[in-house]
Amino acid sequence: MSDVPFPAIAAAIKTTLEAQGFTRLIGAEVVAVEPGVVVMALDRREEVLQQNGLFHGGAIAYLVDNTTTAAAATVLQRGERSVLTAEYKVNFLAPSRGDRLTCRAEIVKPGRMLTVVEAKVTCRTGGEDKLVAVGLATIAHVDRPKGS
Amino acid sequence: MSDVPFPAIAAAIKTTLEAQGFTRLIGAEVVAVEPGVVVMALDRREEVLQQNGLFHGGAIAYLVDNTTTAAAATVLQRGERSVLTAEYKVNFLAPSRGDRLTCRAEIVKPGRMLTVVEAKVTCRTGGEDKLVAVGLATIAHVDRPKGS
Amino acid sequence: MSDVPFPAIAAAIKTTLEAQGFTRLIGAEVVAVEPGVVVMALDRREEVLQQNGLFHGGAIAYLVDNTTTAAAATVLQRGERSVLTAEYKVNFLAPSRGDRLTCRAEIVKPGRMLTVVEAKVTCRTGGEDKLVAVGLATIAHVDRPKGS
Amino acid sequence: MSDVPFPAIAAAIKTTLEAQGFTRLIGAEVVAVEPGVVVMALDRREEVLQQNGLFHGGAIAYLVDNTTTAAAATVLQRGERSVLTAEYKVNFLAPSRGDRLTCRAEIVKPGRMLTVVEAKVTCRTGGEDKLVAVGLATIAHVDRPKGS
Repeated sequence: MSDVPFPAIAAAIKTTLEAQGFTRLIGAEVVAVEPGVVVMALDRREEVLQQNGLFHGGAIAYLVDNTTTAAAATVLQRGERSVLTAEYKVNFLAPSRGDRLTCRAEIVKPGRMLTVVEAKVTCRTGGEDKLVAVGLATIAHVDRPKGS
Repeated sequence: MSDVPFPAIAAAIKTTLEAQGFTRLIGAEVVAVEPGVVVMALDRREEVLQQNGLFHGGAIAYLVDNTTTAAAATVLQRGERSVLTAEYKVNFLAPSRGDRLTCRAEIVKPGRMLTVVEAKVTCRTGGEDKLVAVGLATIAHVDRPKGS
Repeated sequence: MSDVPFPAIAAAIKTTLEAQGFTRLIGAEVVAVEPGVVVMALDRREEVLQQNGLFHGGAIAYLVDNTTTAAAATVLQRGERSVLTAEYKVNFLAPSRGDRLTCRAEIVKPGRMLTVVEAKVTCRTGGEDKLVAVGLATIAHVDRPKGS
Repeated sequence: MSDVPFPAIAAAIKTTLEAQGFTRLIGAEVVAVEPGVVVMALDRREEVLQQNGLFHGGAIAYLVDNTTTAAAATVLQRGERSVLTAEYKVNFLAPSRGDRLTCRAEIVKPGRMLTVVEAKVTCRTGGEDKLVAVGLATIAHVDRPKGS
């Protein structure tokens, strides 16, 4: 992608994420795509909560999954390669009782084979953003199949 | 819960999981609840996939989140305590191209304060169950607020 | 420990770490103990390397283990409680070819039951500190046995 | 390594591990090397303990680090590739008070680019082996530099 201007790359990443069936089901939105950084958000509604009225841990993990993988995609060096999530860890820090989750993923270390990305998830509660989860992900760079 | 027979505990766990807004949105089902083990499954449909037609990593993480936490809940010793997900890690092993995801969580080590649970996620492809992800979770035992 | 001035707490943590049999064997030193932060360092010598002349991953994990646990100990509220490492994850980012490893652990979220701590490990190479690993740890607060 | 008989591969792995400066310092031994499996052990002595007389968490992490990486090395397909630890997680399950730690790492999923390995660490206490830690590791397959 070395000859593609970054705004076009960012637009392609945003379009890809928002077109995922799972993203449309959950109703998450892409807030920002910058070199090395992707931010997504999810508003509170009954369908993304667990039994105690908190955002479901799975919804938080979904945001960590998508933003960390997409953050790695922002720094792909060549058009013929793609990224895949190898693994991630999520630590839940506080109950997410608020109105809106925001997950910001930022590359810690880009690599040719593996890129390591961290994520911070905040929940807006009474006008304030409270840190509710952190994630640490390993994203693999893979060759795209010929002709795809 | 020491005086409650296990089938009643299992039924309560199944009901709680299936009543979650997020579980109803995703359409997952509880397949089994046994002492130390919880199994959930999710059938393939467009709404739970990512852009390449695979089950979304976030859907896999949701299953790991719910089953590991519920597996820890099966061994709670007393009615006044509850469980919370402290953290988990998920490793993605193979693309989940099949028809149905099944996640089986089993306690590795129960504890008074922390219970450690592992999860194995398989995807049924052409009649065969293929291992597509593994998880390792730390679940915290917390006192339920008085009067709740 | 609420009535104990912080310098006394810091000195006790430093003494405890440096008196560990394993710390003396490895030859690591405590560089700083501040509220929520612990820094340790390890100089290069043959005995802490692996087969290619890099610092051994196990030496890096040792630093992450000790600094994250000790960072949580800096914020203990009362004398009757202690801390134990529940789990951690380490990501290796680059080969640690340099002269000296430094690991800085800092609390992300203190808690009554669990404290989450992150660690950054740098390796001084040619006068420059290069980030070689990151860690994310969950530390449990436990009651000290009566009379101990 | 496809033309090299497995006993020769196993012997090379054992020799490499036991020749590491850090392994000699710690005094660990390689107990078994089989296809997909590596077992190492460490006997109790003051130099590998922490302040309460338990095996140090860093010694456990060292075993997880070495055995998981070496387990991935047992299945390398070709002589020109090597393995590197990308990341691992360790969960501590019980205090390791016994005489001897044994860590058994076994491949969960081999891959061309990444191999996922799990580890179980037991501590022999009063003639019985008690599970004290579990690990989950991602090992990267890397091309060896030309001419090395």
